[in-house]
This record gives sequence, C-alpha cells and structure tokens, in this order.
Amino acid sequence: MNVSNENNLSDNESMLDEVLPVSPELVDEIIHALEEGDKEQIDFLLEPLHNADIADVFEQLSDHHRRILTSVIGSEMEPEVLSELDDSTLDDVIAEMDDQDVARAISQMESDDAVHVLEDLDQEEQRKIIDALSYEDRIAIEEGLSYPEDSAGRLLQKNLVSVPGQWSVGKVIDYFKTDKELPNEFYEVFIVDPMHHPIGTVALNKIIRSDRDILISEIMEEELKLVPVEMDQEEVAYLFRHYDLTSMAVVDDSGRLIGMITVDDVVDVIDEEAEEDLMLLSGIADTDITESVIEASKNRVIWLIINLATAILASMVIALFDATIEQMVALAVLMPIVASMGGNAGTQTMTVTVRALATRELTTSNAKRIIFREFSIALLNGIIIAVLIGGLSWAWFNSSALGGVMAVAMIINIIMAGLAGILIPIGLDKINIDPALASSIFVTTITDVIGFFAFLGLAAVVLI
Amino acid sequence: MNVSNENNLSDNESMLDEVLPVSPELVDEIIHALEEGDKEQIDFLLEPLHNADIADVFEQLSDHHRRILTSVIGSEMEPEVLSELDDSTLDDVIAEMDDQDVARAISQMESDDAVHVLEDLDQEEQRKIIDALSYEDRIAIEEGLSYPEDSAGRLLQKNLVSVPGQWSVGKVIDYFKTDKELPNEFYEVFIVDPMHHPIGTVALNKIIRSDRDILISEIMEEELKLVPVEMDQEEVAYLFRHYDLTSMAVVDDSGRLIGMITVDDVVDVIDEEAEEDLMLLSGIADTDITESVIEASKNRVIWLIINLATAILASMVIALFDATIEQMVALAVLMPIVASMGGNAGTQTMTVTVRALATRELTTSNAKRIIFREFSIALLNGIIIAVLIGGLSWAWFNSSALGGVMAVAMIINIIMAGLAGILIPIGLDKINIDPALASSIFVTTITDVIGFFAFLGLAAVVLI
Repeated sequence: MNVSNENNLSDNESMLDEVLPVSPELVDEIIHALEEGDKEQIDFLLEPLHNADIADVFEQLSDHHRRILTSVIGSEMEPEVLSELDDSTLDDVIAEMDDQDVARAISQMESDDAVHVLEDLDQEEQRKIIDALSYEDRIAIEEGLSYPEDSAGRLLQKNLVSVPGQWSVGKVIDYFKTDKELPNEFYEVFIVDPMHHPIGTVALNKIIRSDRDILISEIMEEELKLVPVEMDQEEVAYLFRHYDLTSMAVVDDSGRLIGMITVDDVVDVIDEEAEEDLMLLSGIADTDITESVIEASKNRVIWLIINLATAILASMVIALFDATIEQMVALAVLMPIVASMGGNAGTQTMTVTVRALATRELTTSNAKRIIFREFSIALLNGIIIAVLIGGLSWAWFNSSALGGVMAVAMIINIIMAGLAGILIPIGLDKINIDPALASSIFVTTITDVIGFFAFLGLAAVVLI
Repeated sequence: MNVSNENNLSDNESMLDEVLPVSPELVDEIIHALEEGDKEQIDFLLEPLHNADIADVFEQLSDHHRRILTSVIGSEMEPEVLSELDDSTLDDVIAEMDDQDVARAISQMESDDAVHVLEDLDQEEQRKIIDALSYEDRIAIEEGLSYPEDSAGRLLQKNLVSVPGQWSVGKVIDYFKTDKELPNEFYEVFIVDPMHHPIGTVALNKIIRSDRDILISEIMEEELKLVPVEMDQEEVAYLFRHYDLTSMAVVDDSGRLIGMITVDDVVDVIDEEAEEDLMLLSGIADTDITESVIEASKNRVIWLIINLATAILASMVIALFDATIEQMVALAVLMPIVASMGGNAGTQTMTVTVRALATRELTTSNAKRIIFREFSIALLNGIIIAVLIGGLSWAWFNSSALGGVMAVAMIINIIMAGLAGILIPIGLDKINIDPALASSIFVTTITDVIGFFAFLGLAAVVLI
C-alpha cells in the first residue's frame, strides 16, 4: 500500500494522476492540518481544488477526520461538494453540518441535485432540512421526492427554457438577454404549444446562426423523444444511448412539459446500472463499498446463507453415493473438478445473457437463435474439456473407464451449464425478476447437482 | 420465447417498449418482405424508423436476412445507421456493401464516428475504403487511426469551433453566421491563444446573453480541463464523470488544441468499460455476444482450461488425503461446501475491490482502512457461517468433532477468501495488470486449495 511500486505505474496511469490534484500526499497534509486544528492551512490546501476534488478528500478521510473537516468548513460548504459526495459520506457530512447550512446549500442547487442529496437521508433529517427551506424551494423539492425512486422524475431539472412556436428568433434572443430567471447553463430551447406540450427543440447554435425575423418553429427539430415522468431511469439511460441524445423533455400524464433530463445526469445512471448488475451477480449490494462493516456483513451473509443451502443440496447428492466413494476414493478426488468446470461454464453464459438482456441485444426476435448459439458453444467447449480431463484422469488413475466416466460427466455438465446459463436469466426476465439478482444461485445449484449426479451416478453404474 | 407471458410485464417494461418502434412483430414483417423481395414494402416499413432503430433491425436479423437487407438498401445507407451498428453486424454489412457506398457514408460522418466504423475492419477492407475517400477525408481518418486504440485520439472530433480571445462577442456571432465550415452542432466555443493553446471556453448561452462589444475572453470560463491525446479512454470518461463536464479540449504533446470530446461519446465508453469489467470477471471477452460460435468458443475455452488447471490443483490437495477420506466418507460429502462458501465469499470481496479500483474509490490513501474493513466483514461472516454449518454437520453425521472441524475450516477459509479477495486485485493493479482480468482465477485457486487443505488437514489430525 505504500508507493514503492510507483515505478511500475504505466504512462497511462500517471497521466490521470497528473491531472487529478488529490494525491495521497495531499490527503496526508490535510489530515496533519486537521489534527493541528490549523484552519488557515486547511483553507490554503483546499482553495485550489475543484468542488469534485474536495468531495474526494471527504471520501478519502476516516470518519473521525471527516467530522473534523466538516465542522471546520461546514458553514461555507459549496453546494457542489455535497452533490458530488457518495451516499454514506454525504450522510456523515450532513449529520455533522448545521441544518441551516445544509438548507442554504440545497437552495442553491439544481432541483435534480437537491433531490439526489435529500433522497437517501433518513426521514427525520430530511424533514428538518426541508422545513428550513424557503416555500418555493420546498414545493420544488417535495414534488421531486414525490416521484418514485429511480424514475425520470427524480432526474429531471425543472429549470429549462421553453418558448412558444410563434415567437421569432429575435424575440427568443431578446428573452434570453432580459429574463433573469433562466438557468445559468442551457444548450437548447424547447418549443411548446399553448397547452404546454413540447413540439420541438432548437439548439442554441441554430438560433445564433438564423435571421432574427424567422419564426423559431421554422428552425425547430421536430423529431422529439419524450420521457414519461414515471419511466425507470435505466430506460431513460437506454433512450439517451440508443438515440445519441444530449437532452430529453420530460412530460406528465397529460403530455405537458414539466422538465428536462440532460446527458450528464444520465452518465451517472449508466454507470450505476452497470455497477448494479456487476454487484448483484456476485451477491453484493451496489452500495456495499460505502456501507459500515455491520451493514455490509449483514447484506453479504444473506447471500452466503442462500449459497450454503445450495451447497448442502449438492452435498446430499454426494451422500447418495457414499458407498460408491468408499469403494473408489479417486471419485472424491475428481468430483470437485466436474462441479467447478460446470460452474465456470455456466457463469460465462449467464453473464453474457444478463448483459445482453440489459442492453437489449437479446430480444424475443433473436432469443431462439441465441439459445441455439449458446448450446453450440457449450457442446464444443464441453467436448474440448472432456477430452482433456478424460485423458488426464485416465493417466492419473490409470483407468480408462474412470477417464471415460469423467469425460461423459463433463460434457453433460457443461451442456447443462450452458442451457441453464441462458434459459434461467431469460426465464427470470420474463417473469419480471432482475436476472442479475437471482440467476447465479440457480445456475450454480444446477451445475453442482447435475455435475455430482452425472459423475457419481455414471461411476456407480460403470465402475463399481 | 413467445409472448404468452406478456401480461407479466411490469408497467415500466411496457413503457420503454411503447417508445421503441422495433417490435418482434415489425422484425417479422421485415423478414417476410425480405423473403418476398418486396423492396417497396421494406422501404415502407423502414421509412418511419430512426437510424438507430434501423441499426437495431440489422442486429436482430439472422446473417442471411441481414445480407439481403444490405443488398436492398446498401446503396442508400445513412451514415448514422453504420455508426450505430455493433462491431460484428458492422463487419457483415460493410462486407456486403459496395466500397464506394461505404466511402460515401464515411465521408458524411464526424471524424470520431468514421474512425470508430473503420477501426475494427480487417486491414484489407479498411485500406480499400480509405482509398475510395477524398484526399481531405483520407488525411483526417488516417490521423485518427494513428492514435492508439482506446485513446482520447480515437474519440476526438476535429470539427470544433475555436476563436482568438481578442475577438468581440459580436465578431464571434458574425463568424457563426457566415462561416460555412462550422460543425452542424456545437454547444460551446474554445478560446485559443496565438499558439493555438486552449485558454478557455464560452457556452453559447453566455454568448447570446452578452453585449456584442465586450471581448469574448472576458466572459470565458478559464477553469479548463485538458485531455492529452494519448490518454486512455477510461481515464477520459473518469474526468467527465468526476467534473460533470459536457465537453473537453484535446491537446497534442505541445499543448495545441487538436480536437474535442463530448459527453455523448463518453456515455458509450462508460458503458463499455463497465461491461468489460463484468465480462472479464466471468472469463469472457466483452465482444462475446456478437462473436461467431467458433470465436466465442475459442475465447471462452481458454478460460475454462485455465480453470481446469486450478481445479486439478485443488484435486491434488484432496488426493493427499485419500486415506483419510477412505476412512471417513462423510468428509467427501462435506468438503465441497467449504470450497464453495470460500469461493462465494472471495468473489464478493473481489467484486467490490475490482469495482472500487475502477471508480477510484479505493486509493493508496484509504487502502489500509478498506483492507481492515474487508477483514472485519470476513471474520464476522466466517463466524456466522461456521456456526450454522458446524451445527448442521454435527446433526447430520452425529459427530461433534466433525462439526467442530467443519466450523474451524469454514472460518479459516472465509477469512482467507476475504483477504485474497482484496489483496489480489490491489496487487494486480499495482503491477499494472487489469484486476478484472486475472483476479478471479487467483481467488478461486486460493479458496479451493486452502478450503480443502484446512478441512481435510484438520480432519486428518482431529478425527482419524
């Protein structure tokens, strides 16, 4: 964990390290200043940092130092620092900050960031902060929080620019120059009809390059993808990627424009969703890394206990054949190989399938073809591995019969693993269970049980 | 695979299906028209579709139908359809298209999209298409291809808007209105010094809202993150996420502005990189789903063979204790449980660690703390699982000594699994090997070998 291996870092790695200012040395200096209580030095060290980097510093510190830093700079905390913190660090920092300071920071945020900061706090803390907000901010935040978690409503920014289609380009430009309520940053304008239904968008560069007297509706892009406010964020992210969009209009049930989602918010969603699949497949919560030891232990042990049950099931299969094993202990030596290879082959297919379902590369239209593809791959690889391990077992125990049993069991198990790896995720998806969550437990159970059964069963018939 | 389970779909799922036009029914209709050779009907069916959706249609079709569709619409293929195709479908489609048609489509693309389309083609095909391009396009594409794969250079758009700092806002606006070479879409302007070094950016909304006579350098944002052209795309994506950017300036070795990268290009990178980690951890290539059976089989079987070697290593440990197992066959029944639980616990820790390294949540500053955290979780969960399985084994085989051996072996294995799960990825990362690629093989080997050794070794000493 020290830096003695630094010379092994590739050029690429040092490239990012050169760009990012929060080095282990800087963190050490900050810790030193915190322990000395040297506020001036802390300000000096943090001053050149981007808010995202200050958030990084908070995340790198231990709970103890994090509390000190919060108490030192909490009253002047920039809103962006809070919105960049991960959930558990955010909890710690907000718990230590004065409610008035939190409310001040929140009131300076875009509505989506404010909702993001507040949504994971406990009820009581959330209530106290919302009560400290101005009436207007409170209404906006409460509306954001009223949408389901992970829905488009939680991602939307209410603050967008919309104009009627009959305005001229000149009138739109004058509106930009005079209106004080417009957002600080925007890249396009939404065109709405009298019912406030979005009917098009115009990118700013098109406005600048057009004559002042033509109608804005004449230059608008009419191909408009609308997001219903209840749409799941994963689906919103899919639309952004699929259509290469920079922003989308969010509409309520009656089709009225109530906000927009921009691609930079979606970047986080894409990353979160991919992380969630990765973590779920390994039996962990996607929040694991930021959880306390007790919480993480609790969440992980549930998965281990479920796995224990399936492992015991596999053991019971072995117990059926205890007489066979007693007669030929080589079976006990070889049997974990059958199960392990089946498990690995099944995991390969399952991971491809879970991912293809998430990215919609696997659909009803091509499912039959892909199932056949997986079957073919499993058959091929089953034969290759069977020949290898069959030959090795024959040589090791000097028994061609044992080699044959091993080979046949291996083919059976790898083919079953391939079929389980594709059919189980597809089946779970059909009945609306997240395939990333439950597939691996079913796949492992099947490969273990079938692996032991095929190997020991064949052995009992052929060898004994 | 049929639609009889449709009523099980949640509201959320049908929400996206309503928005996306490519349904299984539409694909069937297109296949029917292809088989009839009914070009008019094909045009009628494809006409309302977005280019990204036409790309989807290509991906859903079998090789045979894909070839027919390409021959029917290849000569009028929109460039966006090509740039939306996945790699293997793209290969198929381009192989079937006329080189002149491909060159025409490529010349209409942004430089980053053109490079993306060309980079994965085989050398000969690539050469033929590049030769069919105009001199100007050829130079741009060859420059793009000269940068290392997965580097910022491959992502950059050369087509950006840059102006000198001493221009007035009015002059910039007039330049936008009169210059014909500007990109169709842009959201901000880069300000450069006389050496063409980028010194700031101005968002278009700021330009519109400023008076014509002030200098553009007065309203520019000076906090500018620059991307060296050789930077790895994963690091570029990290910077975009970390600093919430919409675009970044790319500079060459001498610091001159040579292009820009926009957040919508980074969205794909983020998804690819997360996918890569997921796939690598399960021993598959991230291109697997689009590969042919033979290719996918070859790539996956290498992983299976490596795993076979580690499984044999574990078997050799068991073989050391064959006399012990012969005396007490219950050991053969229980031993897979120890290995399986160790494997699962190790995978949990390893996945968290690989992910935390990728997202830079795990750094030199907090590594010691996180290692201790993982050790604590492993100790806790080891004890819980040990008590459970110890008790069950005792009851099952009516032997308190066997229960005790099982419990102790389980604690040892889960703790070792936790340590391996965190130390191995960190170690690989230090010596610059992608932890996602190699961690799981080491972790499984350790949990298998230690699991069997601890359990059978203890049993040999205590029970026999």
